[in-house]
Amino acid sequence: MAKSLSHKPCDLVLFGTKGDLARRKLIPSLYQLERAQLLAEDTKIVGIARDKHDLKGYKKVVSESLKEFLKEPVDKEVEKRFLARLEYCKVDMTVKDDYLKIADVVDLESRTMVNYFSTPPSVFGAICEGLSHAGLVNEETRVVVEKPIGHCLESSKVINDKIAEHFNENQIYRIDHYLGKETVLNLLVLRFANAIFTNNWDHECIDHVQISVAESVGVEGRWGYYDDAGQMRDMVQNHLLQILSLLAMEPPVDVSADSIRNEKLKVLKALRPITVDDASEKTVRGQYTKGFVNGQQVPGYLEEEGANTESDTETFVSIRVDIDNWRWAGVPFYLRTGKRMPIKGTEIVVHFKELPHNIFKETYKTLPANKLIIRLQPHEGVEIHLMNKVPGLGEKMELQQTKLDLSFSDTFKNDRIADAYERLMLEAMLGNQSLFVRRDEVEAAWAWVDGILDAWDKSNESPKDYSAGSWGPVASIAMLAKDDREWDE
Amino acid sequence: MAKSLSHKPCDLVLFGTKGDLARRKLIPSLYQLERAQLLAEDTKIVGIARDKHDLKGYKKVVSESLKEFLKEPVDKEVEKRFLARLEYCKVDMTVKDDYLKIADVVDLESRTMVNYFSTPPSVFGAICEGLSHAGLVNEETRVVVEKPIGHCLESSKVINDKIAEHFNENQIYRIDHYLGKETVLNLLVLRFANAIFTNNWDHECIDHVQISVAESVGVEGRWGYYDDAGQMRDMVQNHLLQILSLLAMEPPVDVSADSIRNEKLKVLKALRPITVDDASEKTVRGQYTKGFVNGQQVPGYLEEEGANTESDTETFVSIRVDIDNWRWAGVPFYLRTGKRMPIKGTEIVVHFKELPHNIFKETYKTLPANKLIIRLQPHEGVEIHLMNKVPGLGEKMELQQTKLDLSFSDTFKNDRIADAYERLMLEAMLGNQSLFVRRDEVEAAWAWVDGILDAWDKSNESPKDYSAGSWGPVASIAMLAKDDREWDE
Repeated sequence: MAKSLSHKPCDLVLFGTKGDLARRKLIPSLYQLERAQLLAEDTKIVGIARDKHDLKGYKKVVSESLKEFLKEPVDKEVEKRFLARLEYCKVDMTVKDDYLKIADVVDLESRTMVNYFSTPPSVFGAICEGLSHAGLVNEETRVVVEKPIGHCLESSKVINDKIAEHFNENQIYRIDHYLGKETVLNLLVLRFANAIFTNNWDHECIDHVQISVAESVGVEGRWGYYDDAGQMRDMVQNHLLQILSLLAMEPPVDVSADSIRNEKLKVLKALRPITVDDASEKTVRGQYTKGFVNGQQVPGYLEEEGANTESDTETFVSIRVDIDNWRWAGVPFYLRTGKRMPIKGTEIVVHFKELPHNIFKETYKTLPANKLIIRLQPHEGVEIHLMNKVPGLGEKMELQQTKLDLSFSDTFKNDRIADAYERLMLEAMLGNQSLFVRRDEVEAAWAWVDGILDAWDKSNESPKDYSAGSWGPVASIAMLAKDDREWDE
Repeated sequence: MAKSLSHKPCDLVLFGTKGDLARRKLIPSLYQLERAQLLAEDTKIVGIARDKHDLKGYKKVVSESLKEFLKEPVDKEVEKRFLARLEYCKVDMTVKDDYLKIADVVDLESRTMVNYFSTPPSVFGAICEGLSHAGLVNEETRVVVEKPIGHCLESSKVINDKIAEHFNENQIYRIDHYLGKETVLNLLVLRFANAIFTNNWDHECIDHVQISVAESVGVEGRWGYYDDAGQMRDMVQNHLLQILSLLAMEPPVDVSADSIRNEKLKVLKALRPITVDDASEKTVRGQYTKGFVNGQQVPGYLEEEGANTESDTETFVSIRVDIDNWRWAGVPFYLRTGKRMPIKGTEIVVHFKELPHNIFKETYKTLPANKLIIRLQPHEGVEIHLMNKVPGLGEKMELQQTKLDLSFSDTFKNDRIADAYERLMLEAMLGNQSLFVRRDEVEAAWAWVDGILDAWDKSNESPKDYSAGSWGPVASIAMLAKDDREWDE
């Protein structure tokens, strides 16, 4: 049944199986792995929740999740195979003895136990202790943990320490779901399998880089959680810094987990700290006010359901990041992310340097520099913007910027693009940590982000307003203008 | 009527106006310039031939040429304007006094005289003398000359000396019609307006370059002329070496005629001579035998109408060219051109170097190197071949070569691509020599080509057979195989 699968069967134990993430993402993704025959024959999926179900009831919950969240009709045959893998344990995660029940279901000898903590981080410690108490932790046992891992460096250490009491680093799989996206993985291939980019990937050739992660939605009913975090903790500390480090890292010697993560860590450690002295030049915080997105009027952040109208939380951040190393001296990376932007989209734009000399100045006073655009979502693809001659006569040579285009959906027509969680759960079962974040990465990212949060705190300024449906406060545009550059839109 | 035209009106005098080139190319091209309103209002076109016509008769000849050779319906309004410019002189080009008649038609004071020699080179001298005799040569008078300029270095000098007795180099416009092609002009833009290529354009980044000019036709009833020349003189000495020098030249300081031609000349002078010692390793000569092209049976070269069955003339050449300068040390340029190839097409393929280290070796043992493909004709366009990740799960990272594509016809939908002769006649009237070949270029090209012809002569070997419809003799494939490379097909 399974294709060339080299991994041992697993007991995939889903803590918080009735939560939003599990129902929306994890269960549909496991179904897809089933459909693609990527689950080992004897792999079991064990749902853990507080509800008093029998297995039949749990299967019903899973079926309903599939029906609701799968983006395609459920294949009955696949569903049948999938449901046959399920087990259920009623566990109060704070009650140690409840974990003994799990021991009855899993089999540490013939299967690898992969514990997926789809719960608030406050429970991580209790789960680890419960698993230990029930004798379920051996050298092979793994834990997969979701963000947020802390609210700052200190609190992340508390969480990581707690897990580390029971598990070694090589047993811990920290998820940043951006690392599971096809297009993010393709960054490695683009950079390290193409001489045409490898040869151009440094301060000699690149002027600056822009990374934009735009959301068109607002806080969507999670005001309380979000207001406590803000865009910096929710998006920059993890997703944007992960993309940045993949883009900026030195070539790893191989694609093993530690080779890649060592190089990413070096980038994170080389980020120039932003302090209260330069935070106002190098960062912009925004908070959306009411406006129009896609032609629809939407409320401002402080008018959303459940809002504390005094909130100073940012829903938009843009940052000029400098990387203090040999490769990137003098090359800023501009990050930008916000809610209620005009569109939803994640895009990297690499701006190459202008040519040192323009032989076409008679017709084109300044030659636009080449650009490499990597669209991570939607419309995944790669574009190179080049200058070409416009066909035609005329006394002067007319030039025009044109693009060479590679659309993933056109090129790989028959390949469904897998959801990030499919890949990440598969990798966790395979035991490959490359796409998971190592503790030192989390901490380096927090250390840098904390510096900015602290600077904002000290400055005592409120975030700047921006209308929903715009690209953030005017100050964000001005920040680039000051450097004689502009955002790609 | 005319768009922003800065040039003085001209008397464009067409010697050989009833010949094949004039009727097929020059007259339709002048019509197109008329249509595009690129002829100065007072410009005249003066047909010269031996036939006893009146102007009305000549207009009829021109009208018939348009009807026969224009690729679109003739616009009556444009034709009317065009015919109104015509003048005709009956001239026996070998009779000096006949040129006095031309003096009656042209006006050296208010118009620039541009003499287009669409005649065999044996007549060039007589025309120059006739023009002088009639007092038609002043410092502004120009001559436009067609290939072949000689059969070897010596005979080219004789022709050039003859013209030089009456005209300075800055009055002489030597045509290589490849230099008028849109896509050849675009080489300058691609190379010098795009940092992504400029930074990669040397022996550090490029492994080798291939230039292929394939014709699917055979000799087509010009056996006598062709047999005397062969593919080397007919195609390599001019077109292929011109493309090569545009590809390989150092960046010129500007786009002025002499800046560009100085750089091209440096390349031609740096071509490593091929002698009898290495001609058999570095060159392959072929002659087509009967075969199939596009599903049709076609005769061999020695079976064509008018053939001398003993002929040793080559209809195919491939050459490994080394350029002895700093930029191209160790980077061969492989040239290939032939008749009766499987397709008609001109293509440049720049093969970048392989990456020094492969981090994806688990899934892709050798990573294909990046390629830049510039298609000069047909389907004009630019392609970059890149490695990308194949979307999908699976235990290993799967890679695939994909292409980023820029098709001229898709991109510039509304722009008709002008024929090379339209541009070249316009440039001659504008007085811009950039796209014309300077005497020292012609001579440097002949010097190098003569070396090879001489080596072939000394080797006393016949060209190798290849079937019509194939890519030339097997030896051509073997020549690259020996260097561990292969032709792009």
